[in-house]
Amino acid sequence: LRALAIEGPNRIALRDQPIPDRGDECLIRVRMAGICGTDLQILDGYAGFHGVPGHEFVGSVESAPPDDRALIGRRVVGEINVGCGRCGFCTAGVKEHCVSRSVVGIRNRDGAFADYLCLPARNLHVIPDGLADRTAVFVEPVAAACRILEQIDIAERARIAVIGDGRMGLLVAQVLGTVTKDVTLFGRHAHKLEIARQLGIVTAVADTCKAVERFDVVVDVTGRPDGLREAISMARPRGTVVMKSTFHGEAAIESWPIVVDEVTLVGSRCGPFDRAIALLAGARVKTDPLIASVVPLEHYATAFADARRAVKVLFVMGEES
Amino acid sequence: LRALAIEGPNRIALRDQPIPDRGDECLIRVRMAGICGTDLQILDGYAGFHGVPGHEFVGSVESAPPDDRALIGRRVVGEINVGCGRCGFCTAGVKEHCVSRSVVGIRNRDGAFADYLCLPARNLHVIPDGLADRTAVFVEPVAAACRILEQIDIAERARIAVIGDGRMGLLVAQVLGTVTKDVTLFGRHAHKLEIARQLGIVTAVADTCKAVERFDVVVDVTGRPDGLREAISMARPRGTVVMKSTFHGEAAIESWPIVVDEVTLVGSRCGPFDRAIALLAGARVKTDPLIASVVPLEHYATAFADARRAVKVLFVMGEES
Repeated sequence: LRALAIEGPNRIALRDQPIPDRGDECLIRVRMAGICGTDLQILDGYAGFHGVPGHEFVGSVESAPPDDRALIGRRVVGEINVGCGRCGFCTAGVKEHCVSRSVVGIRNRDGAFADYLCLPARNLHVIPDGLADRTAVFVEPVAAACRILEQIDIAERARIAVIGDGRMGLLVAQVLGTVTKDVTLFGRHAHKLEIARQLGIVTAVADTCKAVERFDVVVDVTGRPDGLREAISMARPRGTVVMKSTFHGEAAIESWPIVVDEVTLVGSRCGPFDRAIALLAGARVKTDPLIASVVPLEHYATAFADARRAVKVLFVMGEES
Repeated sequence: LRALAIEGPNRIALRDQPIPDRGDECLIRVRMAGICGTDLQILDGYAGFHGVPGHEFVGSVESAPPDDRALIGRRVVGEINVGCGRCGFCTAGVKEHCVSRSVVGIRNRDGAFADYLCLPARNLHVIPDGLADRTAVFVEPVAAACRILEQIDIAERARIAVIGDGRMGLLVAQVLGTVTKDVTLFGRHAHKLEIARQLGIVTAVADTCKAVERFDVVVDVTGRPDGLREAISMARPRGTVVMKSTFHGEAAIESWPIVVDEVTLVGSRCGPFDRAIALLAGARVKTDPLIASVVPLEHYATAFADARRAVKVLFVMGEES
């Protein structure tokens, strides 16, 4: 059995791995997994993670504890935060903020760039038969985009700017487009903006917004240190900036415009899987145009290199279905 | 008649001034005015303001347009933003975000460090007879503190940290103390923390909070570039940071903790005068211990120098009542 393992900054290798066993968790055979911007940062050394990366996946349950045997054989996706189950956050159902949480492929828990991974049954969501693996593998990032809808009220006539034309930008623009018609995606990459237009997203070349107009809601998914400053400058007085970029390192911002214009900034991370599954199953969010390549795990070196330029690179572990 | 005038960075002088006349606005004889942190920044050159500074004041209406003659002879305080009256913000009653607004003593409008100033009647609030001038002069900054209560819902059991023991910190801590019992003021100045304790505020020396506990709400009133970073580090996951510091210049922050912990940051500026008047009239916010000195306008040089160290320095224009 195979698993990609990060052994240090920019050191990754394919290893043999025994079938993992985490006590009362389900064992999942990974079918497909997607490379995300966070995976690239982890490979660069962020968070000092050693182990198997990958947290966007679809798989099949091969074994489960007695109470969860109904899951065996089902295709599932998985929420990535595993909480302690006892703290205030966990008992309030907010395992993603448990201070002692593990996170699939990010923190103290092996991830999905492998033939198998383990997760508690409570983290799993069965996906509808009609949802192809290559679509289901987007549930996790689409859920992260849906988190925005839980955090802020978006008026039907709200004017929204999404800045950053990468993986998340293309998903966030579509998800927000399900609740308001006025969403513009600002980007700098011609081929990514072309994909956006194929998806029916209104696009603009970044920087053209300067001094032209300001938006009710601006979502920063640039992943760049200057993205936040740009987002703040594009928000109207009393507007909202949603922060989706986990850029690592310091960013220099001027804070007084936030105060003078009474802008609200909202950090936003993981989101609701049910809503994401519904949007993907109903084809209200489309993902096929985002897929640049689908490769076996052995091609990890080119896969990671491609993922730095392309929108979405997927690993397929066996036969795609 | 006298007026202090800023003529360039750190160039201020007392000038003779004719009685100002702004068409259909009320003419107000200034009784007292307070020096605020923003005044010190303006004196240092921020915003390139030339003219009469000062925006915290209490005065008496000497003349008014025909429809507003009932104001003549009344003691008033004044909201500092004067909007165009026609834009979307103004028609929604949010003159403080009108893009072509003038702001008393800050932007395109002479302020209160003078014998007279002008303001539209709609900006004025009559103050109760029982409220002394030296208390009423705090209405504007207390209103700014009250703005926080309009912007965020504070649970009765919320744990709140106010960082910064200056003018605004002492007011914000008291205002928030009217809705929740668990407010701690973090500061670095022994004499200001002593004033806070006299006011019944729980205090802590800044930096002692490190790694100890995190708060539901953190208000940054430090006025320092590193205040925001400190505030973010003190907020719990899904907590709120209220930004009250209009520090000018860049601040370096790490944005990823905001995202990972889903912290919300809220810029906060001017607030409701009615609520501030009620809190001061009911002695729920106390201001006498904040007053370091009350001096005539001629003593402006020492007044500004003192204001950089002391909590609150007031100008009195004639006889204090």
